[in-house]
Amino acid sequence: MKAEIIAVGTELLLGQIVNTNAQFLSQELADLGIDVYFQTVVGDNQERLLEATRIGRSRADLLIYTGGLGPTQDDLTKDAVAEYIGRGLFIHEPSMDKIEALFAGRGVHMVESNRRQALMIEGSDPLANETGLAVGNALTVDGTHYMLLPGPPRELQPMFKGPAKAWLRGKTGEELPLHSRQLRFAGIGESSLEAAVIDLIEQQSDPTIAPYAKEGEVALRISTKARSEAEAFAKIDETVSAIMARVGEFMYAQEDISIEEAVVQLLRNSTRTMAVAESCSGGLLAEMITSVPGSSSEFVGGVVTYTNAMKHKLLGIPLAQLEGAGAPGAISESTAAQMAERVREIADSDFGVSLTGVAGPAESEGKPVGLVYLGIAQRGQQTAVHTLNLGGNRSTIRLRAAKAACYRLWQMMRGS
Amino acid sequence: MKAEIIAVGTELLLGQIVNTNAQFLSQELADLGIDVYFQTVVGDNQERLLEATRIGRSRADLLIYTGGLGPTQDDLTKDAVAEYIGRGLFIHEPSMDKIEALFAGRGVHMVESNRRQALMIEGSDPLANETGLAVGNALTVDGTHYMLLPGPPRELQPMFKGPAKAWLRGKTGEELPLHSRQLRFAGIGESSLEAAVIDLIEQQSDPTIAPYAKEGEVALRISTKARSEAEAFAKIDETVSAIMARVGEFMYAQEDISIEEAVVQLLRNSTRTMAVAESCSGGLLAEMITSVPGSSSEFVGGVVTYTNAMKHKLLGIPLAQLEGAGAPGAISESTAAQMAERVREIADSDFGVSLTGVAGPAESEGKPVGLVYLGIAQRGQQTAVHTLNLGGNRSTIRLRAAKAACYRLWQMMRGS
Repeated sequence: MKAEIIAVGTELLLGQIVNTNAQFLSQELADLGIDVYFQTVVGDNQERLLEATRIGRSRADLLIYTGGLGPTQDDLTKDAVAEYIGRGLFIHEPSMDKIEALFAGRGVHMVESNRRQALMIEGSDPLANETGLAVGNALTVDGTHYMLLPGPPRELQPMFKGPAKAWLRGKTGEELPLHSRQLRFAGIGESSLEAAVIDLIEQQSDPTIAPYAKEGEVALRISTKARSEAEAFAKIDETVSAIMARVGEFMYAQEDISIEEAVVQLLRNSTRTMAVAESCSGGLLAEMITSVPGSSSEFVGGVVTYTNAMKHKLLGIPLAQLEGAGAPGAISESTAAQMAERVREIADSDFGVSLTGVAGPAESEGKPVGLVYLGIAQRGQQTAVHTLNLGGNRSTIRLRAAKAACYRLWQMMRGS
Repeated sequence: MKAEIIAVGTELLLGQIVNTNAQFLSQELADLGIDVYFQTVVGDNQERLLEATRIGRSRADLLIYTGGLGPTQDDLTKDAVAEYIGRGLFIHEPSMDKIEALFAGRGVHMVESNRRQALMIEGSDPLANETGLAVGNALTVDGTHYMLLPGPPRELQPMFKGPAKAWLRGKTGEELPLHSRQLRFAGIGESSLEAAVIDLIEQQSDPTIAPYAKEGEVALRISTKARSEAEAFAKIDETVSAIMARVGEFMYAQEDISIEEAVVQLLRNSTRTMAVAESCSGGLLAEMITSVPGSSSEFVGGVVTYTNAMKHKLLGIPLAQLEGAGAPGAISESTAAQMAERVREIADSDFGVSLTGVAGPAESEGKPVGLVYLGIAQRGQQTAVHTLNLGGNRSTIRLRAAKAACYRLWQMMRGS
């Protein structure tokens, strides 16, 4: 079955809100094994709603509308669909009773237009609204399914997960559900990852392999349709093995988690702790790690030492190391090592991670934008320093540096 | 002029990402006075891209594509548009030089597919990509304008605001240009702001007033069409005065800058500096301030003291203040004050700002989620502490705490 999502609302076309409903419905439909080939957004306008319906019907078997079921004159979705299929509208009495009871209970006079929320298209099935007033509609005409859902996410989501999904299952009983797994990579760019597995992506149709970029990371999604999870997993496992053989060293998870979540998980599992000393990343690494809920058991603390004076005062790094003729300087391998070691000692943590470099826009100490030294000190071990040459603007360099720090720490923990 | 936004990417149809690009472009086009009647999302599929183009062309004068300009075989937007209008593709040499230089500079082997990012449709104008590799394209064929932009927001947004907007202005020269001004607010919620000016929003049609929420902040956009800037500004100034009379105390800028940018500007103008000591915000405040380019002159450094031991070791706060029966505890007014004062002293900065509280998910020291103390120490002045009761989940509480810290610091500097 092919579906098209039609989100209705001028506020979407003006950019006043972001279309999270399309994302929610797309995810839900993917889980049901229903393909979505197009999403459309149209304003509160009868003529253009009819046009979107006409086009949608020409390329999909299931049209899912969200929005335009409310009480105002701008809420036209039911009117437009009824006109398109040549049917009338009637008041659904149970929904009307609910609306009247609500207003009576609040002691508020019901504005007449609220009756519109109880409208149904002739021959449609009602979809109960547990969290709002507008009743949903679902019907099949000449082989095309129409499903009209409310726009507010807190009404849409329960209606879809409850009565709408049940209604759809009745229509798609014979199709196989989609199973998928996400492989997450760090330390490798999107194009290099794809180049390494391009033949698999192109030659293989089941399971399918789809690459995509997440904020500073890359992922592959492996998907297949199968009767059971066991059957699906057997197929997916085989594909994962083929991918692992080529780029396994860069894969850190077979689930949808970020590299910082993977780091916190590994620390937690081994009851170890970390601390950070940041210069060019300005607190982003600390922020990234502490954004993981519950990370306060693993993350002891950190310093953001932008100036040499702060590197000296907070970490005790000798000024002779940082400045003056012949000194290694703040942006150097040895300073990265000392920052990592000193913050680990102060925090008495198992790991100390440091970043010092040039995020831009201007170069610093005569060093180029994008050059970043990453230090990782470990209790009782020799400190490792990695030299990164990062591309992008200031915010990208900071993001990549922080992600690289997480990845290298993850790698070191996996190896130990 | 009527525009249609065509977002390209199977990850959108699978619900893996939300279509923030459509929102961004819709806002920008509204500012330019260009109507958007439809948004379409289509997958990485040549045939369906052609169909979306055909339909778009039948109902719009300007088709703006976002996505599908990358290096992979899935990136088909240029191929599809070129096929639709019957033109060829060629390699844009300046873009190719840039790509090659980037790989050479990093000492990384360039995968051949990266050449695709330098492709242009014959007869199109290049749109420079300041933050990525894929060059944008813009061309007009038979009265229809085609604009091909990259998908990653950090590439799309600068390209649109720079070369794409300039290109569009050249095409819409005859229409009365839209002038607008953004008023930025902090320390007030979206619904309170809207309630304070709702009568102006509803009764006034020129200039229009549109409220919207930005990441942790709120803004009003005042817009009018006028022949000249002087004429527009006279109208806009009058509306701004009416708004100021009601909510002026929360307005920190009449331009599109974040509160952290406003803070850095004020520090720079008065050649003052700041340092931060963070607990619950985990580095976010430092990250926010240092994300402003050039902030290294104003931001000296900071500490992220998650544990009491770190508050003691890095800041010298007595353990008796932090723990034990009868102690104020880490989450207290007096600890916030000491953190701000100590980090200011260590950094020898003009201001020290601290955040200590409960970001959740669980309560801490018996204090509720959302309770945050914000301390601001100033050289030679008494330290101020604000008690914040913030709503939302962990990441929202952290964001609101950091934004509140910026706003209170800004307010204090304005007053001094």
